[in-house]
Amino acid sequence: MKVGIIGASGYTGAELMRILHLHPRLELSYVAAKTQAGKKVGELYPHLHPYRDLVYEKFDPEIALEKAELHFICLPHGESMEVAPTLLKGNAKVIDLSADFRLSSAEVYEEWYGIAHSAPDYLGEAVYGIPELKRGEIEKARLIAVPGCYPTASLLALAPLLSNGCIEGNQVIVDAKSGVSGAGRGLTLDTHFPQCEASVKPYGVAQHRHIPEMEQYLGEMVGSPIGVVFTPHLIPMSRGILASAYARVDGRLKPEDLYELYKDFYQNKLFVVVLQEGEYPQTKAVCGSNYCHLGVKLDPRNGWAIITSAIDNLVKGASGQAVQCANIMAGWREEEGLEELGIFP
Amino acid sequence: MKVGIIGASGYTGAELMRILHLHPRLELSYVAAKTQAGKKVGELYPHLHPYRDLVYEKFDPEIALEKAELHFICLPHGESMEVAPTLLKGNAKVIDLSADFRLSSAEVYEEWYGIAHSAPDYLGEAVYGIPELKRGEIEKARLIAVPGCYPTASLLALAPLLSNGCIEGNQVIVDAKSGVSGAGRGLTLDTHFPQCEASVKPYGVAQHRHIPEMEQYLGEMVGSPIGVVFTPHLIPMSRGILASAYARVDGRLKPEDLYELYKDFYQNKLFVVVLQEGEYPQTKAVCGSNYCHLGVKLDPRNGWAIITSAIDNLVKGASGQAVQCANIMAGWREEEGLEELGIFP
Amino acid sequence: MKVGIIGASGYTGAELMRILHLHPRLELSYVAAKTQAGKKVGELYPHLHPYRDLVYEKFDPEIALEKAELHFICLPHGESMEVAPTLLKGNAKVIDLSADFRLSSAEVYEEWYGIAHSAPDYLGEAVYGIPELKRGEIEKARLIAVPGCYPTASLLALAPLLSNGCIEGNQVIVDAKSGVSGAGRGLTLDTHFPQCEASVKPYGVAQHRHIPEMEQYLGEMVGSPIGVVFTPHLIPMSRGILASAYARVDGRLKPEDLYELYKDFYQNKLFVVVLQEGEYPQTKAVCGSNYCHLGVKLDPRNGWAIITSAIDNLVKGASGQAVQCANIMAGWREEEGLEELGIFP
Amino acid sequence: MKVGIIGASGYTGAELMRILHLHPRLELSYVAAKTQAGKKVGELYPHLHPYRDLVYEKFDPEIALEKAELHFICLPHGESMEVAPTLLKGNAKVIDLSADFRLSSAEVYEEWYGIAHSAPDYLGEAVYGIPELKRGEIEKARLIAVPGCYPTASLLALAPLLSNGCIEGNQVIVDAKSGVSGAGRGLTLDTHFPQCEASVKPYGVAQHRHIPEMEQYLGEMVGSPIGVVFTPHLIPMSRGILASAYARVDGRLKPEDLYELYKDFYQNKLFVVVLQEGEYPQTKAVCGSNYCHLGVKLDPRNGWAIITSAIDNLVKGASGQAVQCANIMAGWREEEGLEELGIFP
Repeated sequence: MKVGIIGASGYTGAELMRILHLHPRLELSYVAAKTQAGKKVGELYPHLHPYRDLVYEKFDPEIALEKAELHFICLPHGESMEVAPTLLKGNAKVIDLSADFRLSSAEVYEEWYGIAHSAPDYLGEAVYGIPELKRGEIEKARLIAVPGCYPTASLLALAPLLSNGCIEGNQVIVDAKSGVSGAGRGLTLDTHFPQCEASVKPYGVAQHRHIPEMEQYLGEMVGSPIGVVFTPHLIPMSRGILASAYARVDGRLKPEDLYELYKDFYQNKLFVVVLQEGEYPQTKAVCGSNYCHLGVKLDPRNGWAIITSAIDNLVKGASGQAVQCANIMAGWREEEGLEELGIFP
Repeated sequence: MKVGIIGASGYTGAELMRILHLHPRLELSYVAAKTQAGKKVGELYPHLHPYRDLVYEKFDPEIALEKAELHFICLPHGESMEVAPTLLKGNAKVIDLSADFRLSSAEVYEEWYGIAHSAPDYLGEAVYGIPELKRGEIEKARLIAVPGCYPTASLLALAPLLSNGCIEGNQVIVDAKSGVSGAGRGLTLDTHFPQCEASVKPYGVAQHRHIPEMEQYLGEMVGSPIGVVFTPHLIPMSRGILASAYARVDGRLKPEDLYELYKDFYQNKLFVVVLQEGEYPQTKAVCGSNYCHLGVKLDPRNGWAIITSAIDNLVKGASGQAVQCANIMAGWREEEGLEELGIFP
Repeated sequence: MKVGIIGASGYTGAELMRILHLHPRLELSYVAAKTQAGKKVGELYPHLHPYRDLVYEKFDPEIALEKAELHFICLPHGESMEVAPTLLKGNAKVIDLSADFRLSSAEVYEEWYGIAHSAPDYLGEAVYGIPELKRGEIEKARLIAVPGCYPTASLLALAPLLSNGCIEGNQVIVDAKSGVSGAGRGLTLDTHFPQCEASVKPYGVAQHRHIPEMEQYLGEMVGSPIGVVFTPHLIPMSRGILASAYARVDGRLKPEDLYELYKDFYQNKLFVVVLQEGEYPQTKAVCGSNYCHLGVKLDPRNGWAIITSAIDNLVKGASGQAVQCANIMAGWREEEGLEELGIFP
Repeated sequence: MKVGIIGASGYTGAELMRILHLHPRLELSYVAAKTQAGKKVGELYPHLHPYRDLVYEKFDPEIALEKAELHFICLPHGESMEVAPTLLKGNAKVIDLSADFRLSSAEVYEEWYGIAHSAPDYLGEAVYGIPELKRGEIEKARLIAVPGCYPTASLLALAPLLSNGCIEGNQVIVDAKSGVSGAGRGLTLDTHFPQCEASVKPYGVAQHRHIPEMEQYLGEMVGSPIGVVFTPHLIPMSRGILASAYARVDGRLKPEDLYELYKDFYQNKLFVVVLQEGEYPQTKAVCGSNYCHLGVKLDPRNGWAIITSAIDNLVKGASGQAVQCANIMAGWREEEGLEELGIFP
């Protein structure tokens, strides 16, 4: 299947190219970028030498539709919603890695992203692309909204508890730690090496744009609104997210039940590994891979479940998950081209 | 004033030596170690070249008492309680950096540390050495229990809220991120560079031994028991702790009040810097210094305060705080020898 | 083809397992370890979850020979030479990752490694497993000595110059920078995270055991003895080697010729990428991959060539190269199972 | 003594402020910046909280001369030479941290920096500010050119050998490894965290602008031209330089003489620590300090000396050395305000 990448010069675009290089069934046939149009891939990404002389094209919908039947959109939010409808009307399938089609409500989108949604008609049909939770819908979708990196880690951490009605109250806390590549390729002082090396810093406390996305899908699970108290932190590593999720649990849930609950929920989900009790996930174990490792713990003294979840933000948190969705949409094995294990140590 | 360090070969001992080197009033006159006894300081610590040829002695209470009138004990828990009484009986003052005298109850100590306390009679008189909260008692103390690194960061983060009766319920959540030096100089697979570099990992979830210490002093503040849901994480940096503390607040506390509450609480506390609203602390800004930076935020949608707190675990979290206590006990300016700013960037 | 790993619990063994997991033609059927025998792979390596419940066996030559026809030996030097002869006599092929069969002279081996060689009769037939330079011999070999990580980076950097008689004098300088995983999984103070993080340090200056290996094969290229002035450094990263090689060049070699010389030498060598003039390699671009990136520069003011070479020490510098040799021995495409690109950024 | 900092918003300016904060005799009374003029120090540097509300002024020579009698210039090269003459004419002393007054020849300056020198008349009187080598001249100077970070590390490494006529030939090789703060506060892709983290990369091979400076002062030592083959590398740490210098030595120099040669040369030089034979310097041991650690080794097989030298690029490589010069110019103890030991681990 011929696929294109639109907005290919950023980190998620580069990661898609790395994955597609070894994918047995997806062939990269169109690569567009905006500010980097005209440059060669090799000028930006030394690791992508098989694509070294490939030139980023300026996006042209007609050419895009002619060259590929499925497009990954890696544009910033706000730009993606301008492009996706054209491609869909041209009968292409679209897997969008931006935030533009993740929320079902245009009002909530505007509230958090500060701009009006220009394609609200597509919000209803867009499927949230987290295969472990939405596989059936993904199979039939033509427009996928790939979840944000933080929501991927957080929803996988909390889904078994919330889907099974095990929490008390209507709030959860997620304290997340992200590698710096999550901030993208754009230069900022906060991501300038000397400023963030050997240091931890929170940012966007209780204001991060991934919050409404988490609240929407967690709310779906329990059937009523859920509030997410969310603090992201920047960690001195390039890749990886470790989300530590806290939920007050129903007193009937016993510590010894928690592991079984998770084990059952994720049985047959190849990419989610539930660690034994007493084991905890670390981001390095999933670096470069599409896996999510989960550690489960119930604090019996206080009655809170503490679920820790590790992913590679650029793979399971973005490009790998996008390819996983593409595999499902095409009816192939979900793991095609995604079986690499983590690069450890 | 002549001082000694007992258990001087570990990281907190080395950090004390670094600080004492420039301290205008404390003179290092006794240095003992256990397994490293007989070695020169220069063999272990290349940065301590002024002490290069100093030899770690085997601990001998008589010599210790003869050579110094104040002793910093940097032994592991369990060993400190064997040494402190002898020194106190010999009329020395003791500043203990271990956990042995932090808890007021020998039963709680045994429960969390797994060994019976051998000097329970001293638990009553030991003063918890966190000068911003216990200054009056420190002035008169002869036995100081320097708080753990996590409790220092966490208590400074939560004290204004809890002392002012601003929280709802009787639980708080602390999600802490520590540099690897916090694990000490002992070799373990978890602190082997290739295993923990570029990675984040939780450990001791809901079971860390700093929990009872936090619960005791937070409980004191509110006058009733407080549960601390606590998750420490190992971060790929050598120094620094960033504690993110979550407390459900009384609905009458407004977002705009929070900064004032903290500003007032810490006015005249030189080593605590309350950052402006919208600013967040980072560990690098306090690296090598005795400062604590606090960031305050109220999540108005959910009603939780999120306080983030950064310290250098070896300075304000251990040796710097110990010297701060020594200064206060001696009646000097609290900041003598501790005025270095953070090494940034 | 069924293969075994002997000494599988170290980093090169784990890296072989990661590679073999996706190799289409090599099947892992025997896994032995020494001190870790009896443990499960999952207890040591969280990223190897497909092998999670596999138990490291105690090495038994009969079982090894029965279960696999090709063995990768990842034992320390000194132990490998005890094991390889038995396997060879049992008609297995052996790819040894230790230093035991790299040097042609048992005397030189004893001089640098401090022990007598117990299997000197095999030194003559062992083939140095660097496919870009020894492909013909590898095809016919039954015993491969995989080069050390430093020699791989250094020989690839210098081979075009030395093979073409372009250097003056009989000495070269190699200043190498290695990630900490090169020191292995064993715990030492030098590889304890707080000691080596955010720091650079040379070690084994002019005394590293990889020196005789470099001198032997560089000497072969020019047909007379070559001295290697070698300084390795420990760099705060887990993976990667950057070797900077300096050679005084014949005055007839022009700056503009250097790139062509390298380009020609490595044409058709898939895993060696010669960068354009003005571009320099970085270890991150080859992290997790079997590629070597080379940067070439002639200092026209002083008449020295400065060749910089980047590899992943655990892949092209060890396990990847071992699999590349296995592919060649089996008559397959050299790159089978080794086509992953670097994990960047 | 009242001092000013011109160009104070960069890393060397910030480091001067950190040092001056505790300097007993220098009082910061003027702080100017260019693009950051009007901002508060606290907006840029969270660690400089005592200066939090100080506003960077726009540079005005009259005000500068009125407010301070000694000025540290931290402007980029090309800008410094526009400012220094005005200050000197106004009878201020100037310590310039840029490259503008380091070279004695305006022609060489133009050749390497690509711009004509606008104040060539001052090149003759400017004193190269490396106190261990130029103390007498510094005492009497009114214009100091503080050496670059690489030259500081390299000259201290090579001076004993070259000053004593111990090398053969007229070339040396310096392979240097620098922390990323050496590249300054300006944002570039090469210093974007995800690009350079966990990676090593050479840059400016044989073309770095610190080369002529090293060649001039090494040439002075031997009394004839010296060529420096120089390769800098970017290392994933914020601070520190490790320079590995290679010089072919006269055959009469014995390995056992080398340590004595260095020990003698640097006796009474407080800030240079010559390590015992077999010990090697590491950048972490000098982090945040003004010390230089030197490791000496003679490769007896090949006849080369390999001298490794570690400094903190922002302290001994820039701002600390500048203050050291100021102390000497003022006739004070050289080490005033500079006695902090390295932050280790």
